[in-house]
Amino acid sequence: MSAQTSTRPNGTNGSGASVKGVKGQLDASKLKFDLTTALKDVPKPGSAELWEQNVATDHMVTCRWTVQNGWEDPVIKPFGDLTISPLASCLHYATQCFEGMKVYRGYDNRVRLFRPDRNAKRLVMSAERVSLPGFDPGQLVELIKALVRVDAKKWLPEPGSFRYIRPALIGTGRQLGVQIPKEAILMITLVCWPDFSTESPPGVDPRSDLRLITSRNDTIRAWPGGFGYAKVGANYGPSFASHCEAQQAGYDQVLWLLGEEGQVTEAGASNFFAVVRDEQTSKPVLLTAPLTDRVILDGVTRRSVLDLVKSRLSEELEVREAKFTIKDIEAAWRNGLLQEAFVSGTAFFIKNVSTIRVGDINIDLPQKQDNGSAFGPRIKSWLKDIMFGGEDHEWGVVVE
Amino acid sequence: MSAQTSTRPNGTNGSGASVKGVKGQLDASKLKFDLTTALKDVPKPGSAELWEQNVATDHMVTCRWTVQNGWEDPVIKPFGDLTISPLASCLHYATQCFEGMKVYRGYDNRVRLFRPDRNAKRLVMSAERVSLPGFDPGQLVELIKALVRVDAKKWLPEPGSFRYIRPALIGTGRQLGVQIPKEAILMITLVCWPDFSTESPPGVDPRSDLRLITSRNDTIRAWPGGFGYAKVGANYGPSFASHCEAQQAGYDQVLWLLGEEGQVTEAGASNFFAVVRDEQTSKPVLLTAPLTDRVILDGVTRRSVLDLVKSRLSEELEVREAKFTIKDIEAAWRNGLLQEAFVSGTAFFIKNVSTIRVGDINIDLPQKQDNGSAFGPRIKSWLKDIMFGGEDHEWGVVVE
Repeated sequence: MSAQTSTRPNGTNGSGASVKGVKGQLDASKLKFDLTTALKDVPKPGSAELWEQNVATDHMVTCRWTVQNGWEDPVIKPFGDLTISPLASCLHYATQCFEGMKVYRGYDNRVRLFRPDRNAKRLVMSAERVSLPGFDPGQLVELIKALVRVDAKKWLPEPGSFRYIRPALIGTGRQLGVQIPKEAILMITLVCWPDFSTESPPGVDPRSDLRLITSRNDTIRAWPGGFGYAKVGANYGPSFASHCEAQQAGYDQVLWLLGEEGQVTEAGASNFFAVVRDEQTSKPVLLTAPLTDRVILDGVTRRSVLDLVKSRLSEELEVREAKFTIKDIEAAWRNGLLQEAFVSGTAFFIKNVSTIRVGDINIDLPQKQDNGSAFGPRIKSWLKDIMFGGEDHEWGVVVE
Repeated sequence: MSAQTSTRPNGTNGSGASVKGVKGQLDASKLKFDLTTALKDVPKPGSAELWEQNVATDHMVTCRWTVQNGWEDPVIKPFGDLTISPLASCLHYATQCFEGMKVYRGYDNRVRLFRPDRNAKRLVMSAERVSLPGFDPGQLVELIKALVRVDAKKWLPEPGSFRYIRPALIGTGRQLGVQIPKEAILMITLVCWPDFSTESPPGVDPRSDLRLITSRNDTIRAWPGGFGYAKVGANYGPSFASHCEAQQAGYDQVLWLLGEEGQVTEAGASNFFAVVRDEQTSKPVLLTAPLTDRVILDGVTRRSVLDLVKSRLSEELEVREAKFTIKDIEAAWRNGLLQEAFVSGTAFFIKNVSTIRVGDINIDLPQKQDNGSAFGPRIKSWLKDIMFGGEDHEWGVVVE
């Protein structure tokens, strides 16, 4: 490690927003096109390779940043390998962050993004947490749209289908000192993705409900003062071992607890919701962890769920963004007050939880198909309508 | 994120040790040589580019691992860029870990490593924490020696000089699902490095003592149940912003505190030691954070310092590996009991601390040159003797 003097990345003003008039800014209007004619095959819907989550479309966007010149002109070019120095910051010090989004082919045949401005702003925030350069989030949205315009016709032909969008920012400067990267690359790839909310991988029990197991006391995903709120690589790799252990024990995801009291935070890499009837009033309450201590991700789907419940279900379902523990969940279940649980996220969309394993106890919840009055499926269907153009809504941003 | 079924990496048995007879094991005896004749210039001693910490020697070692075949044959080849998929696990999910070591040209002209077995074992442990494949640590040491044998003659000609060795393991599998990497690359590079313990970067005040500032309450480096004990990228990138802030405020490194009580953990990316006289006995005590809650790195230099104090200074200096807080340090200072503080690590070696900034208070410690009776310099000189062959010791491993 080094005592090297660090420099603040150009293009940020500390709050992560871009600074006008200082070196190169990220500018989608300068996008250069280097399109390929060597086009790849598109995987069939439902095919096994979708579950590999590694088939990209024909093109990608990249944009280089240097501390000397700021952002260079972005390029849309054939999808292909990057050339990275063995001494690059991103390979040693996890100077990396990303976003997860989807692009949808509507039932009306139009192509939509879902609240892309929120993902773009979050990427700027995540970048700041790992000392990567800032940019104008609106420019990122324009670059995403440009990539979608080039590849959506061939790669997203079917109404009702979607692809996954992965913007990522990595520190590519060759430097082993403990210092802010002097070079970075923003890249946007478009990847074939299975529908986790309705399908299961080949050879796997086709149940569609999730089975969660609580994290071990000696394994904590994130903590106050850390970076659980940012979508940085550092939150993921260290969680894989617990995820693998959960799967080997027959569960799908880890329900991450925090502290001795077992505060419930996230499920896998998704946000967690429980519907619990209030002990006094018997009225159902939608419980989810708060953003206040910055331990959980401010999920776009999470926020959309909360917004929809407040605007459309306020008579039936109270929202409670507050700390709660696994003991609260267990007590509600023992008292017959736990009605439903689900997770939300871009990858899973909204998925019903049928079991939570806590120590020796299985907290069993209704299967989705046996719970006609459940809130999760109703919210999911509203969101799906917005994503696929069944409902005209400002969250569904059409790519013309 | 995905519900994809994960598979345990081949070559590990859960404890990270290698498994015999299962697919390819890391095997230094199979090293292939692809040497270059296009040799680079060696930076002059004391030259400015050393401070960039990015000039590698002519060669590097790489070895690929796949879940199907295990470890392939390692190769020593010209230092050069890697080809990495934009979907590689290491770029998105921080599936990466590394080691920091040095190679020394002794006063007797022989080339030595310092306790390389400890670094190799730690890399296996770190790899396991981020679900990367295990290997026999002895084979890594052999690969390091092979690289040193090829490049040391030209790159390390001067007795009393050293280079930095950076073994690193990265998950290169193309996969955006939350899953254990299916491919990985082990690489070893040899890098020119300044002498932090005796020099300062060009243009920087050439004081040789360190000035520390305590971390903010809302920024924590590591947490029990996290991964502070492992040398994984995820511990570094998220710390750069605090490091930069400290430097902008005129300090060299952050003294990382934990919890409301301000438990002292690490300084920058080094281990921290304080020499405090016991209130009752007046006898000096060497205080350092314990490994028990797995928050700090089990530093090779830290362990060597403790071993030397126990074996050579037991009459003069008591070792206390125990939790202590910044309030303890402040109280000792106010009571005139704080004698000395220093940090230890491969990059810094052993470096005296002259100031600790805590809120509005400057805890001032003796400058190195004004503290002839200090323990840090004595321990440092013993270690230096072992590294450079002034003392024949089992920790100094000669590369024949």
